[in-house]
Amino acid sequence: MAEEGERSVEEIERLLRHVANIVRQRGREILSQFDITPPQFNALQALIRNQAMTMGELCQELFLASSTVTDLIDRMEKNDLVQRVRDEDDRRVVRLQVKDKGRKVLEEVMRARRAYLATVLSALSVPECIRLRDSLKQIHELMVVEVGR
Amino acid sequence: MAEEGERSVEEIERLLRHVANIVRQRGREILSQFDITPPQFNALQALIRNQAMTMGELCQELFLASSTVTDLIDRMEKNDLVQRVRDEDDRRVVRLQVKDKGRKVLEEVMRARRAYLATVLSALSVPECIRLRDSLKQIHELMVVEVGR
Repeated sequence: MAEEGERSVEEIERLLRHVANIVRQRGREILSQFDITPPQFNALQALIRNQAMTMGELCQELFLASSTVTDLIDRMEKNDLVQRVRDEDDRRVVRLQVKDKGRKVLEEVMRARRAYLATVLSALSVPECIRLRDSLKQIHELMVVEVGR
Repeated sequence: MAEEGERSVEEIERLLRHVANIVRQRGREILSQFDITPPQFNALQALIRNQAMTMGELCQELFLASSTVTDLIDRMEKNDLVQRVRDEDDRRVVRLQVKDKGRKVLEEVMRARRAYLATVLSALSVPECIRLRDSLKQIHELMVVEVGR
C-alpha cells in the first residue's frame, strides 16, 4: 500500500510536470504570434502583479542577471510595452511601469491561452470537466496551505 | 450552459496557472538548497533531454541570448555540472555534456520535488488521489493529441 502510494506520487509529479511543460510550450507558440518573447511575457506578468518595481526587484523575481534584464527592458521600452519612471520621492530610484500596449498584449495572450484550453477541454464531458476542476481546486488549496506553513 | 462552460475554462486555466506557479516557486526553494539557480536547472533538464546539444541549440531551447547562455555554461562548467566537448566529426562545433555531478544534482532535486508533493498529497484520501491522477492523465492525453494535430 505504501508502495502504491509512492507510485501515485511519482505519477502525479510526472503528470503535473508534463502538463505544465505542454502549457508552457503552447504558451510560447501563442507568444510568437504576438511578437513577444517568453522572458518579456514573464517580465510583463511580474510588473503587473507587483506595481512600480525597481530593476533590482525585477532581477530577483526573474532570477536573471542585471545586464540581461537591462537588455530586456531596453527592448520592451522600444516596443512601447513598458517605461522607466523616476521615483517621486527619491529621484535616484528608477521604477518600471507597464504601458497600455503592454497591458493589451498581455490580455490578448491570456485570451488566446484560454481559447487553447477551451479546445482541449471541449473533448471532455461536463462531469469530467467538473472532476478536473474539483481535483485542481483541491490540490491548489492544499498547496496554498502548505506554503503558509 | 455555454456561459457555464466558459466559466469552467477560465477557472481551470487559472487553477492550472496557479498550481504551476506554486510548483515553480517551491521548486526554486528546493533548488536554493542544492546551490543551483533556476536557469541552471532548466539548462540541466534540457541537456539531459537532448544529448550533445550545441550552444546555439541551448540558446533556442531556453529563449536566452547567446551571451547569457555563455555566462551560464561558464558557471556550470566551473561547478563541475557540465563540460564543453569538441565534436568528433567537426572540430569547430562545441557540444555540451552533463557531468556525473550534474546528473546527481538533478536526481536529488527531483527526489526533493517528489517528497514535497508527497507531503501535499498526504492530506488526500486514496479515492481523491486516484481522481486527481485520472483527471491529470486525461488532460495530459488530450493535450498530447492536440499537439500532434
